[in-house]
Amino acid sequence: LFTLIEDGTVTSPSGFRAGVAAAGIKYQGRLDLGVIASDRPGPIAGVFTRNVVRSAPVVACQRRLNSGVGQAVIVNSGCANACTGPRGAHDAEQMARLAASRLGISPEMVYVAGTGVIGTFVPLDRVAAGLSKMALESSGGHDFARAIMTTDTRAKELALAVTAPAGCFTIGAAAKGSGMIHPDMGTMLCFITTDASVDGRFLQAALGRVTDRTFNMVSVDGDTSPSDTVLLLANACSGHPTIGADGGQEFEEALLEVCTRLAMSIAADGEGATKLFEVIVTGAASESDARRAARCVAGSSLVKTAIHGADPNWGRLVCAVGRSGAAMDPDRVSLSLNDVPVMSRGMPAPFDEAALRRSLEADHVRAHIDLHIGPTSATAWGCDLSHEYVTINASYTT
Amino acid sequence: LFTLIEDGTVTSPSGFRAGVAAAGIKYQGRLDLGVIASDRPGPIAGVFTRNVVRSAPVVACQRRLNSGVGQAVIVNSGCANACTGPRGAHDAEQMARLAASRLGISPEMVYVAGTGVIGTFVPLDRVAAGLSKMALESSGGHDFARAIMTTDTRAKELALAVTAPAGCFTIGAAAKGSGMIHPDMGTMLCFITTDASVDGRFLQAALGRVTDRTFNMVSVDGDTSPSDTVLLLANACSGHPTIGADGGQEFEEALLEVCTRLAMSIAADGEGATKLFEVIVTGAASESDARRAARCVAGSSLVKTAIHGADPNWGRLVCAVGRSGAAMDPDRVSLSLNDVPVMSRGMPAPFDEAALRRSLEADHVRAHIDLHIGPTSATAWGCDLSHEYVTINASYTT
Repeated sequence: LFTLIEDGTVTSPSGFRAGVAAAGIKYQGRLDLGVIASDRPGPIAGVFTRNVVRSAPVVACQRRLNSGVGQAVIVNSGCANACTGPRGAHDAEQMARLAASRLGISPEMVYVAGTGVIGTFVPLDRVAAGLSKMALESSGGHDFARAIMTTDTRAKELALAVTAPAGCFTIGAAAKGSGMIHPDMGTMLCFITTDASVDGRFLQAALGRVTDRTFNMVSVDGDTSPSDTVLLLANACSGHPTIGADGGQEFEEALLEVCTRLAMSIAADGEGATKLFEVIVTGAASESDARRAARCVAGSSLVKTAIHGADPNWGRLVCAVGRSGAAMDPDRVSLSLNDVPVMSRGMPAPFDEAALRRSLEADHVRAHIDLHIGPTSATAWGCDLSHEYVTINASYTT
Repeated sequence: LFTLIEDGTVTSPSGFRAGVAAAGIKYQGRLDLGVIASDRPGPIAGVFTRNVVRSAPVVACQRRLNSGVGQAVIVNSGCANACTGPRGAHDAEQMARLAASRLGISPEMVYVAGTGVIGTFVPLDRVAAGLSKMALESSGGHDFARAIMTTDTRAKELALAVTAPAGCFTIGAAAKGSGMIHPDMGTMLCFITTDASVDGRFLQAALGRVTDRTFNMVSVDGDTSPSDTVLLLANACSGHPTIGADGGQEFEEALLEVCTRLAMSIAADGEGATKLFEVIVTGAASESDARRAARCVAGSSLVKTAIHGADPNWGRLVCAVGRSGAAMDPDRVSLSLNDVPVMSRGMPAPFDEAALRRSLEADHVRAHIDLHIGPTSATAWGCDLSHEYVTINASYTT
């Protein structure tokens, strides 16, 4: 159905180019401005933060999404442009205008995103200067994935080649973490491109469903950013008949694969993280219960510090389920860590502590919690809580 | 109305004695077993964890509270006796029986509490040996406050002398923190004694109201323990007419003072904490909104790390309000840190950054968030998130 493209990126689909600049928005000499542009306009879908405090770029994107059409995105990684009032709203529109003028298209076709310090203003002169020296190229995807990074230690990007009944197409994506990340639209920024021809309404519905199962199941620190943005541009350059609700299964499965991989890499590269922490809840009474329990365990500071220390302190996981709001019967719960049963039907299960400690030192730790009361399951992804997380966040604005 | 008793403690009220032992429940050579006993039975009130996972001692207390009467408490600080199934339930009852036999009273008069590792069993033989060598004394309060400590660095205790229309009486208390602490019954253990004569139903109602404004407004790490317990024993030894709903104002105010002081010291002594973080929300649309917003800010990992680093990264506080669920209009919010305005009606306010950084290095940091949309307010207490928190919790069971 789909294959991973070697060295794939957000410009792997046909008809997309990207450009970057070191515009000096917050720091000198690092890439901090990126543009993705399609050769032609097409349907666009978006999912955004659920925080009541929304950044000016999020508000600008949500307004544009009423049309359902887009052609380009401009992103900066030095300034969130949040809590900046009417001037911030004006600045976000101005960023779209500057990019539109550079690309020779309408400002309404340009979507805007930003990440960085809250409560500071975008230096528009530096954005303009960055755009003026920017070259947009079909090989520009890798640089784009680097330009949107803040505290990320690795670029997060991939592309899939998909074979569907409607025809062949490609999906590419780039995302960034890595702090202020929690379930309610739990990514920071993610840009997905495809040369598939997709019905606009189906595109939005599929992106919403996939986001709920992927980015919304990631937690790095329980905090929700005002800038969270996922945008999906479809430019129809692959030329096959339009995919809609009826023919969309392969498209949605491939999109799920792309977003699952990115969600896992966002969690694994959480601020200060030394390991990926995967929490699988089965036997829940409902899907929302399963999700709530899995996210609560993945987000618990006490669980995360224990995972950091490879400490099999499993009572903390059970207690996190207990405060999650999910229906549970403590006497039925079974729990394993890296496939070693540590609790069985509500009672401690004997285990080889030294062996389990060694196993928990791996860079991927998996908890499986079976509530044994229903048929549904969910998976959440988080990371450990380390000294480095404290170091990063004790002096972020410095 | 009331005065702080110098060197006051849980045995300051007339007719209460306490005893302790180093029973070797988890570690050798440290106090880990404590008993409070009244000379006579009296009304008792209790508030417990809202976690679905409840420890066996909590279940035992809740069953006894149906009678509304009690005379003694036995507490261990090495073993939570949670996730221990029917054997744990039996062990909790057995602890009550052992203490009752030592005191010569009915096991139904003895309440049980525990804190420590989850999923381990209480060594009843060590409890019995500890009780056999225990002396109960009216001067035993200070030792009791030490015996219930786990990762606390300071004992938490006080007593107030109260003058009310009904007569004079004393309230004493001892509490412990300091991890797995979050709003839903946000203390670990607190034992309050009074020689006042108080109607049992009023006692329970007053304790519930006071707990909502004090212990339930504390957050150390967002995790809720299965052991959280507040017990309030009233033995009527002061001999005045019974205080009920009508004459209870002075009693409830004094109780609020006791619990506020303990709540603040639990927050200030949170695991790894270097400072107390007080969050005052005003101008909220409702009391539940004010509480929700204050607790969410006090509990945010990103806010707590910024406070740790004396970093005036105020956008994180606004975003925590934004994800709290409280009604807010981002364009109306004003925010100050240690009385320095940093955000005014939704816009950044200019401030002297170096001076504010110096001010944030104090051991008590205060944030005031005015939502400017309603008449109600609330205060929450938390602490900073430090490297030491990670160190403590990465190897708790070791």
